Amino acid sequence: MYTSKEIAAFEAGIKLGALYHQFVGTPVSVETAESLERAIERSISLQPYVVSVSVRIDRSMLMGNVFGYSELSGKMIRAEVGVAYEGAHVRAVLEYDPEKDYPMMHLK
Amino acid sequence: MYTSKEIAAFEAGIKLGALYHQFVGTPVSVETAESLERAIERSISLQPYVVSVSVRIDRSMLMGNVFGYSELSGKMIRAEVGVAYEGAHVRAVLEYDPEKDYPMMHLK
Amino acid sequence: MYTSKEIAAFEAGIKLGALYHQFVGTPVSVETAESLERAIERSISLQPYVVSVSVRIDRSMLMGNVFGYSELSGKMIRAEVGVAYEGAHVRAVLEYDPEKDYPMMHLK
Amino acid sequence: MYTSKEIAAFEAGIKLGALYHQFVGTPVSVETAESLERAIERSISLQPYVVSVSVRIDRSMLMGNVFGYSELSGKMIRAEVGVAYEGAHVRAVLEYDPEKDYPMMHLK
Repeated sequence: MYTSKEIAAFEAGIKLGALYHQFVGTPVSVETAESLERAIERSISLQPYVVSVSVRIDRSMLMGNVFGYSELSGKMIRAEVGVAYEGAHVRAVLEYDPEKDYPMMHLK
Repeated sequence: MYTSKEIAAFEAGIKLGALYHQFVGTPVSVETAESLERAIERSISLQPYVVSVSVRIDRSMLMGNVFGYSELSGKMIRAEVGVAYEGAHVRAVLEYDPEKDYPMMHLK
Repeated sequence: MYTSKEIAAFEAGIKLGALYHQFVGTPVSVETAESLERAIERSISLQPYVVSVSVRIDRSMLMGNVFGYSELSGKMIRAEVGVAYEGAHVRAVLEYDPEKDYPMMHLK
Repeated sequence: MYTSKEIAAFEAGIKLGALYHQFVGTPVSVETAESLERAIERSISLQPYVVSVSVRIDRSMLMGNVFGYSELSGKMIRAEVGVAYEGAHVRAVLEYDPEKDYPMMHLK
């Protein structure tokens, strides 16, 4: 058996894994980043038990390739997802950890 | 050796293949469809040689699952991409073919 | 603060969300399903804290389109992921729930 | 109206765009690269008009992150797809161009 909080944590993990692997690889630039942020937020907010989502793409990493755009990578994303499950609430974050050089996901 | 028009057709194919396989699986509903359409258009418009992109998600297919949302599938998408390469122009379309029950891509 | 078990549950959720949204949309047939199952298992097994992964694609759903293949959808997948985090172990499952007509993810 | 060769070029573009955006982001390591290569090849070979596919992931780019694995990126992939459409044949290649620092797709 699992507690409500364990299940809420599980559900929060699903959302961050989904967000990451659905959208990594998407072409993006400084001009289109906001549109993509909002579309990701709205899409993930539809999933079960989500109460809040915020997504921020780090513009300083959008330097552009030879054709003038970038591809969304995990390191560019700061996302925070709030999940509520039968009275339990958790917040989970995806953010780049510069020391580990890795896009870490953690419970907050 | 390839003609400019053959290369333009190749480039148009890349864009439709990219659009399809990047975004299929994204959670979507009637409320979020427009945000997703615009984000897809803006994202694909960044790719090389693209001069126009329009994306339309068929609302009548967004009936919702037990949690009230749908997942973007190829059959829901009508997309049209215009590509220009060294004087050659092509337009390519992704649209559901109800007879074949298949999301067809073709040059227009 | 979170317990080890809550964090393990969170990590298990990440893996199922990743698996789902990375691979949904992949062309698949009865002939290629096993190759895809193994590649998904091996790929997800690389992620942090994973101790086991098994993936099974339901062949009875691979009926084929007009060109003779299918696309991987969530409903076709049964996946089970085992995660260990600082002494806590959880198992999480993705499987189609025919009553809900939805690919459910749950802790086991 | 389009020639068979233009349509074959279009179809080849679809396959490379699909391959790229379906699989970029997949966790991969030196140990799992071959399994992923074969699964990608088999999956893309199912698509219409494909007569051959070969995929090679550059092991020298699989240096591993803090958790010991990498994520498939476009720059790591060399793929070649052969397409036949009504008597016309084309071959298309995805390969990293170090001068442009970009994963180029071109007709061969």
